[in-house]
Amino acid sequence: MLRALARAATLGPGVPWVRWSGSQAVVSAQVVDLRSDTVTRPGPAMSRAMAEAVVGDDDYGEDPTSYRKRLQSFLGWSGLCLCPPTQWPISSPLAGVLSHPLPDLPHGMLDLTELEKVLARGHGSPYHPVCELVCLENTHNSSGGRVLPMDYLHQVHLLAKTYGARIHLDGARLMNAAVALRVPPARIVEHCDSVSLCFSKGLGAPVGAVVGGPKDFIEEAWRFRKALGGGMHQSGVLAAAALLGLADAEEALLQDHGNAQRFAKGLQELASPFCFVDPATVETNMVLVRVSGLSPSELCQRLQAVSPDEVAQIGHAVRVLLFPWTEQSVRAVWHRGISTHDTDLALRKWELVLRQLEP
Amino acid sequence: MLRALARAATLGPGVPWVRWSGSQAVVSAQVVDLRSDTVTRPGPAMSRAMAEAVVGDDDYGEDPTSYRKRLQSFLGWSGLCLCPPTQWPISSPLAGVLSHPLPDLPHGMLDLTELEKVLARGHGSPYHPVCELVCLENTHNSSGGRVLPMDYLHQVHLLAKTYGARIHLDGARLMNAAVALRVPPARIVEHCDSVSLCFSKGLGAPVGAVVGGPKDFIEEAWRFRKALGGGMHQSGVLAAAALLGLADAEEALLQDHGNAQRFAKGLQELASPFCFVDPATVETNMVLVRVSGLSPSELCQRLQAVSPDEVAQIGHAVRVLLFPWTEQSVRAVWHRGISTHDTDLALRKWELVLRQLEP
Amino acid sequence: MLRALARAATLGPGVPWVRWSGSQAVVSAQVVDLRSDTVTRPGPAMSRAMAEAVVGDDDYGEDPTSYRKRLQSFLGWSGLCLCPPTQWPISSPLAGVLSHPLPDLPHGMLDLTELEKVLARGHGSPYHPVCELVCLENTHNSSGGRVLPMDYLHQVHLLAKTYGARIHLDGARLMNAAVALRVPPARIVEHCDSVSLCFSKGLGAPVGAVVGGPKDFIEEAWRFRKALGGGMHQSGVLAAAALLGLADAEEALLQDHGNAQRFAKGLQELASPFCFVDPATVETNMVLVRVSGLSPSELCQRLQAVSPDEVAQIGHAVRVLLFPWTEQSVRAVWHRGISTHDTDLALRKWELVLRQLEP
Amino acid sequence: MLRALARAATLGPGVPWVRWSGSQAVVSAQVVDLRSDTVTRPGPAMSRAMAEAVVGDDDYGEDPTSYRKRLQSFLGWSGLCLCPPTQWPISSPLAGVLSHPLPDLPHGMLDLTELEKVLARGHGSPYHPVCELVCLENTHNSSGGRVLPMDYLHQVHLLAKTYGARIHLDGARLMNAAVALRVPPARIVEHCDSVSLCFSKGLGAPVGAVVGGPKDFIEEAWRFRKALGGGMHQSGVLAAAALLGLADAEEALLQDHGNAQRFAKGLQELASPFCFVDPATVETNMVLVRVSGLSPSELCQRLQAVSPDEVAQIGHAVRVLLFPWTEQSVRAVWHRGISTHDTDLALRKWELVLRQLEP
Repeated sequence: MLRALARAATLGPGVPWVRWSGSQAVVSAQVVDLRSDTVTRPGPAMSRAMAEAVVGDDDYGEDPTSYRKRLQSFLGWSGLCLCPPTQWPISSPLAGVLSHPLPDLPHGMLDLTELEKVLARGHGSPYHPVCELVCLENTHNSSGGRVLPMDYLHQVHLLAKTYGARIHLDGARLMNAAVALRVPPARIVEHCDSVSLCFSKGLGAPVGAVVGGPKDFIEEAWRFRKALGGGMHQSGVLAAAALLGLADAEEALLQDHGNAQRFAKGLQELASPFCFVDPATVETNMVLVRVSGLSPSELCQRLQAVSPDEVAQIGHAVRVLLFPWTEQSVRAVWHRGISTHDTDLALRKWELVLRQLEP
Repeated sequence: MLRALARAATLGPGVPWVRWSGSQAVVSAQVVDLRSDTVTRPGPAMSRAMAEAVVGDDDYGEDPTSYRKRLQSFLGWSGLCLCPPTQWPISSPLAGVLSHPLPDLPHGMLDLTELEKVLARGHGSPYHPVCELVCLENTHNSSGGRVLPMDYLHQVHLLAKTYGARIHLDGARLMNAAVALRVPPARIVEHCDSVSLCFSKGLGAPVGAVVGGPKDFIEEAWRFRKALGGGMHQSGVLAAAALLGLADAEEALLQDHGNAQRFAKGLQELASPFCFVDPATVETNMVLVRVSGLSPSELCQRLQAVSPDEVAQIGHAVRVLLFPWTEQSVRAVWHRGISTHDTDLALRKWELVLRQLEP
Repeated sequence: MLRALARAATLGPGVPWVRWSGSQAVVSAQVVDLRSDTVTRPGPAMSRAMAEAVVGDDDYGEDPTSYRKRLQSFLGWSGLCLCPPTQWPISSPLAGVLSHPLPDLPHGMLDLTELEKVLARGHGSPYHPVCELVCLENTHNSSGGRVLPMDYLHQVHLLAKTYGARIHLDGARLMNAAVALRVPPARIVEHCDSVSLCFSKGLGAPVGAVVGGPKDFIEEAWRFRKALGGGMHQSGVLAAAALLGLADAEEALLQDHGNAQRFAKGLQELASPFCFVDPATVETNMVLVRVSGLSPSELCQRLQAVSPDEVAQIGHAVRVLLFPWTEQSVRAVWHRGISTHDTDLALRKWELVLRQLEP
Repeated sequence: MLRALARAATLGPGVPWVRWSGSQAVVSAQVVDLRSDTVTRPGPAMSRAMAEAVVGDDDYGEDPTSYRKRLQSFLGWSGLCLCPPTQWPISSPLAGVLSHPLPDLPHGMLDLTELEKVLARGHGSPYHPVCELVCLENTHNSSGGRVLPMDYLHQVHLLAKTYGARIHLDGARLMNAAVALRVPPARIVEHCDSVSLCFSKGLGAPVGAVVGGPKDFIEEAWRFRKALGGGMHQSGVLAAAALLGLADAEEALLQDHGNAQRFAKGLQELASPFCFVDPATVETNMVLVRVSGLSPSELCQRLQAVSPDEVAQIGHAVRVLLFPWTEQSVRAVWHRGISTHDTDLALRKWELVLRQLEP
């Protein structure tokens, strides 16, 4: 359905955000794409960084030490491995392990008592699997970008240690967490045994990721990447883009978080019976909006459509792109492609749509 | 050992090919890097193509149709999937299949009688595995870039069909094969059920690959890539580089093949007792040199070292970078970074080194 | 913990049920082992059946057709494969598949709306896994041996068909379900695409299982068993024991079910504040007893211990063996080794223990 | 084909060795089944041992310690795990490992120089897989039951240790090796890190196997067996059969080896141009016969068929059952079901068939 929706957006008339589409559109609408922070496209500075990147063959260990060192000091780890996947330990069946999903609490954390039960169960009983890896995600996507508190990380760390398990952090949005917590990323990573960081979310780079961990773990990861076929060759091009994104990440993400907060408060003030949002839960660049009275899918379609009288009413034709998130919510995500002005445009479009729903 | 060797080269004094290294070198040597065709770095035109690439989020099916269409017409297939790995079906243990390697004949082909035995064995007998996939590589790396003849592909195709198996072609160097056979790549691919093509070998792009096949196969590949975590997001940046490489591939590869041939003939004419090469076996951009009287590793070290009297004798200080290939051979690979002049420089360095070995 | 508990039982003084243990016990206690229906040991008739079994090498397809035919008519399937595992599709990581556990409703069924969501999700969206197999268990262990109703099986069957999925039935206790539903097992199996049946539960055989399904599925299962190394050779010995157990299964299981019901009602009548059981939920050979006021583990220890005054009070020394089932329940299981008299002994021991708990 | 052949044998008229087949045969032939040592069926003593076995639920660690202790002292290991497979580490794709088959030398050994290359390759180079396990088989099946010399085992052991690899011994026919080498099995096993022993070959038990190794390895194996679904419950029945087979293994196997030798010498003396055998290579219970002038398959069919004039010529109607082994050989295997008299019958039948082939 996501794909069908995306297609609909792409092929609709007059969608200027798709630069390669036809241009014979009648209504020239402004597009505010809040679907994901993966939709950012490299700007001129990033393109230049990629063009000027000094590269060697990563498969021969000849990637330029400069970017390696900067990422290392950023993550606080001796080992690093550039890789394509954004989510490293997701493929449990391919890895031959059994994954045991625990329910998320509303703020994105696990119930520590439940976690300890799972960790303890395999010890002393040969009838239950031994839990060897605890996977966390920070910020936590499905709870709407909530940040895992440092104290919680510390407690999970202690539990894992007690039962001989390791911790992997899916840090796809680690920078958002660090900015929100006002700590260097290495402080967060300290509580983990390995971490993955996505280049194409908060950093705005086109593609790629990095896995960090102790030297022996990375040597194993490197072999595993090789076994999957993935010599990354001149991937320094991608690292260069990521490093540029890293350089101004604090500033850029603070703005994203501010805009998300601004949107949440604006939406709350509309006091619509069709939408509910709690700004206190907006900790980073995401806003989860609870929808009632219509389906999230229908709401997304209305926000994306442009009606003839729209310009007359609010002075703009705006398409807001969003994905239905659950059966009762939509998710909006801020990123480098969304300014405060875009945020206000989106808010006005929501207002228009919500008013039209009223009797 | 490869890695140690590469490191030695990288950190040695006065290696101008490593642009990021220190510059206080005494001997300023010219480097001819014949280790692999993966070592090419993007030139200005390719960097520009990447910077100007029009991209969308590939994970949402929004990659620009322009590059998709060009790759499709190139490979002659309706389905395509950008991916990181260069060798798609190598990871048999991860895929849960048993691989059955057959010995390569000297020209890179399989013995068809042996192949038929393996294909036939699982039919009618529950005691032997059923062979479901035949994997070929064209050009064939370990035989020194030999080209699989069209007639051979046709015969393998018939055999596979007879026994209900499919054919995957590792086409990392498919363009080299097409250029050598003077046929469009789609003619070669016609005999296969799926193909992978590496962006970072003959096409000179920094990283990436594409897998082609029928629509349902690609839909499955897309899911598999997703399961591995690999949303490729704005990978159109990489496709743009590959397409630029594709545009002048014929011209560039013909020159590589010509230079490889020129080198092979030149080396043959030296008539050294330490090296043997048969130019008739040089069909594309690789030269396998049989080494006797010293180890391939020692030969590589001598070719890479720069001696004080070298400039005096041949007017140049040249480092030729090569990998030992087997216990009795070294492999030299031509690519976009090696001109005819570089080839001649390399040849002169070989001559110098081989003469020094004589009593 | 289970194991430790079992060990404690094994090594305790005067446990006549462990024939190989020392016999210098002071208190000669009667043991009622309600831990599982896998603890049955072959009686004289079964031992004779095994001794007299006519066998060939199953690995050469030479198992006697007589037992094959009887199992086939029993399960209503053309294909059969003797195998060691009792639970065939449990090893998702080894099979390279992702398992998606759905919560059990109290009566052991799945919520059909939830099931349909999971089945539907992968269709039309490449972002979600395609569900290819629905696994059911009948009778359903963790709900206390509840029987899946025929109508429910029919509905799951329709759903699975609609979305192109297959159904595997873990029929470890299929005979208990058939006896409870008063239908031939083949009627239940009719709604499934494959089934596994354990020899060592309701049938009382020492070890082994059989997988049934259509001919092509079984051919694949046979190959898979071979790939795992498991030539079953003269496993007809085990089939002979299972067939003997099958011959009188209806009678034996009806008695087990009756005894379980008798126990549940007896326990209910004790009206202890420490234990709660609802006889209406006892459909086959299991009784789940909710425990409050003490831990299930402590209750099990008290039921297993023999006190000096026990004989004085109830005229017997009885050890009742049980496993804690969850954190608030214990499970009791009836089988061929437990008579109505044993059931009453167990009940009297429970009464004694529960009374001692009262203030 | 094996299966088809087996079927042919099973369904042919007058095959008394298939006790369950019809008995209205015209020619009552004696059958000498030399196909494999897995075809043995339990005799009365073994059936009695199984019937009288004292068993508990192996899944609860309650298998009788008596058999465990006897197997432990036999293999010299603290850890043991009853299991169904006869060949433990064969399923490399399921285990997620890459297997690297090395060619067997004629006497069943590996070339130690080649082995060291493979072991050394992954050390110091991240481009090659690290070899973590060396698998040996003793006696070695495909070379015709050759025995691995103690000195060779010692050398492999040293090599593996040097490179941090472990050794697993497929000891399906370990007893044959021990008897041939005149050492206790524990002496052989001493050079390995784990061993598997098949119950249904030299020991003549119907089905089952045991894996031995250090305590922690066996704990892991036990979990792995559980993950595969295989609670072995009252498998003590099978262990009882195996222990009976073990008790007289030396005597029984010495006789098998003697009969195999007797057959090889007898066949050599026939000096037929169609068959070649070297008695010096017959070290245990197998004879590999090289066949020329007709296909192994045709030879097997002739040895199995009974001609009307056979009784007239040699006084017996004999069917010798054999499998074609390779494209130019057949394998004959001795076991508890084959007496010296049977051996002579088989030899006479070979003589008859070979003479009929002469012009």
